[in-house]
Amino acid sequence: MIQLDLNNAASFLSQDWLTSRQDRLEKARVMLEEGNGPGGDFTGWVHLPRDYDKVEFARIQKAADKICTDSQALVVVGIGGSYLGARAVVELLRSPNYNLKKKDTPDIYFVGNGLSTDALIETIELVKDRDFSVNVISKSGTTTEPAVAFRIFKSLLEEKYGKEEARRRIYATTDAHKGALKGLADKEGYEEFVVPDAIGGRFSVLTAVGLLPIAVAGIDLNALMGGAAEAMEALAVPGLDNPAWQYAAARHALYESGKSTELLVGYEPSFRFFAEWWKQLYGESEGKEGKGLFPASVEFTADLHSMGQYIQQGQRIMFESVVSFQNSLGSYTIPNDPENVDGLNFLSGKPLSFVAEQAMRGTILAHMDGGVPNIIIKADRRDERTVGQLIYFFEYACGLSGYLLEVNPFDQPGVEAYKKNMYALLGKPGFEEQKAALEARLNG
Amino acid sequence: MIQLDLNNAASFLSQDWLTSRQDRLEKARVMLEEGNGPGGDFTGWVHLPRDYDKVEFARIQKAADKICTDSQALVVVGIGGSYLGARAVVELLRSPNYNLKKKDTPDIYFVGNGLSTDALIETIELVKDRDFSVNVISKSGTTTEPAVAFRIFKSLLEEKYGKEEARRRIYATTDAHKGALKGLADKEGYEEFVVPDAIGGRFSVLTAVGLLPIAVAGIDLNALMGGAAEAMEALAVPGLDNPAWQYAAARHALYESGKSTELLVGYEPSFRFFAEWWKQLYGESEGKEGKGLFPASVEFTADLHSMGQYIQQGQRIMFESVVSFQNSLGSYTIPNDPENVDGLNFLSGKPLSFVAEQAMRGTILAHMDGGVPNIIIKADRRDERTVGQLIYFFEYACGLSGYLLEVNPFDQPGVEAYKKNMYALLGKPGFEEQKAALEARLNG
Repeated sequence: MIQLDLNNAASFLSQDWLTSRQDRLEKARVMLEEGNGPGGDFTGWVHLPRDYDKVEFARIQKAADKICTDSQALVVVGIGGSYLGARAVVELLRSPNYNLKKKDTPDIYFVGNGLSTDALIETIELVKDRDFSVNVISKSGTTTEPAVAFRIFKSLLEEKYGKEEARRRIYATTDAHKGALKGLADKEGYEEFVVPDAIGGRFSVLTAVGLLPIAVAGIDLNALMGGAAEAMEALAVPGLDNPAWQYAAARHALYESGKSTELLVGYEPSFRFFAEWWKQLYGESEGKEGKGLFPASVEFTADLHSMGQYIQQGQRIMFESVVSFQNSLGSYTIPNDPENVDGLNFLSGKPLSFVAEQAMRGTILAHMDGGVPNIIIKADRRDERTVGQLIYFFEYACGLSGYLLEVNPFDQPGVEAYKKNMYALLGKPGFEEQKAALEARLNG
Repeated sequence: MIQLDLNNAASFLSQDWLTSRQDRLEKARVMLEEGNGPGGDFTGWVHLPRDYDKVEFARIQKAADKICTDSQALVVVGIGGSYLGARAVVELLRSPNYNLKKKDTPDIYFVGNGLSTDALIETIELVKDRDFSVNVISKSGTTTEPAVAFRIFKSLLEEKYGKEEARRRIYATTDAHKGALKGLADKEGYEEFVVPDAIGGRFSVLTAVGLLPIAVAGIDLNALMGGAAEAMEALAVPGLDNPAWQYAAARHALYESGKSTELLVGYEPSFRFFAEWWKQLYGESEGKEGKGLFPASVEFTADLHSMGQYIQQGQRIMFESVVSFQNSLGSYTIPNDPENVDGLNFLSGKPLSFVAEQAMRGTILAHMDGGVPNIIIKADRRDERTVGQLIYFFEYACGLSGYLLEVNPFDQPGVEAYKKNMYALLGKPGFEEQKAALEARLNG
């Protein structure tokens, strides 16, 4: 299971950093367990690894198998939580070069998560001459970015295969009962999967939202859910040795001591998008009412040669949370160089992972010496089970953290602000007055 | 040329934010111009777009042509400034999916910028059965990450082609006179390019360090350098309407007013690594002596659905610097949907870029209303000339910014700390005592 090493944060924390938060953690635990705290209607993720819909789960796997058989590419239409979780898991467990690699499973393209014309045209070029399917993921079906992309890729499918076959290549992950996409899916007869009411986007990776693309990448869903279930059981047990309690309490204590920024640190390029998923999870859950740690991320050792200087000697505003996977999947031995041109023969014959391990250990001490507390989150081998554990660990600790911070960790009231302005500026019917006011400000 | 729009930052700045910094900016300008300020030995980039070595420039283009002829892939070995600039420009001008796209130029793989065993093995798999060349970029030749990677890819080349042909496929970008890699390159007869003494890694993208990989991607070096030269001329002119003066002064004023974090905002997925290059440039130049803005980045509109909540309502510690390219390269018209399922027919027939433009305008106002100052950096069409301008703009403004902050913007003393610890823990000869001490702390 996930373990926490706080040895390199302890000197920055008061002696009672954990015990003084015990009562609040226990209250938070009960609120998550019973769904009766702020945002309690959105705690469906808490027991998801136990209570998930087994029938739908089997359908997801079957749909993935069909896509693997009839498609060279899957186009995933979704934004925010409707793509970050899937992309995070696919990159972490397969590779950020997943689409480049030789493999038995389809390429996966994530679209509808922005408004770049050039990125859209590029993806069209990459898929249009190949057999492909579309997984459109949207609770409402009316969010601008995915809705526009779905119009386009639906048309592409219909042009390529005709309306009937296109319908069989569209998988709609949407509200169970209502909404524009639900209505269309019912009418057209798309295979449908559910975005549950009780689970917000950023907590949805282990629902159909994340699982269908993840399964198409050939990732073992049972192992992933199994890992999450293990974490669910372990982290439900109250106590000061609970790693989620420790993580939530340590980051809250560091926040209260004046740190404004948490840096999630990974040592694998494949971890980059998992960090993006984490940023949404924590930033959107905590960043409200003028509160919350600013979530940022780095990829070491690469970024030790870019952000490293700042972390070592810049403003002392951050702490680091380092995710460390035990052992690499593969192994590579550093070759000997008879001429020892680079002076590194003292490493010859050693595994590269040994060098990486020492780089991590050395960095943690260096940064601690520079005044940056380090929390180390130790995970096992980078496989499905471990990633399932890690997802649940971060989700559960996020729920606890939000309650320690005394916010509703499950809403996102600030996300509407840009949308309203955008709708008005786009000339959406009903926004005429706002449009005039905004244009006046922009031109004034 | 690059232009600054400060209308959405003005209300957060005192009336004299610019005039009160005029004298300091003028002093900074002179120090950059004459190379006599702190770190003045590393201001070779200031006149580089005029003074660059035209003979070497032609050799770079010729080497790139050879690589395009005899290689399906180029492996670029380098860390920090020895890969970020090239990767940033290749992604921004070609695509983050450059390696996936059909094209006339070789794939490019960046290695030696970390210690991940799995990423290394993956890249070996991706290139070993194809014709490839190696560009090793290291001033010393002894930095651990690139040195280890170079050992491995040099061996691969030698196994594949024999020693003699391998030599013709290795391009060494290194010190002009000394160092391990220089010695090896001389002895083996590699084609050599120069990492200039007077230009630090993070300012080196327009030297051979960046230009060879950039040229291999089919990017027009003359246009890129031409854009940089235009910016050099324009930004050398002192005055309060100089956009680099404005950017340096505005961010310094916001820093002094209490903002700790600068978010670089792009609206194109292809901008993601340019933002990483920018983070190194500013973070490493300013993050010292407990000072400096923490550099972070987001990709909109995608991240409006992840980091957007925090930016709108979290701690009020940041401002945004938005890089806005005028017009997309391509154009795509939003199709009509007779049934208007998503309610977006008010956009039918409009170009997608219009929607993106309104999203940006709406977001800037929303964030400003949320207490986040917005600086808008307006660039022309996303082409070589504009990117050359943008690179020089950020470099020059960074030099000014460092001097306003009263640091040496051209050193990076904090980068050594992790290296020393790592060497000791790895058992490098000469570090025995430190090793024992560090192990004791780690086990303690």
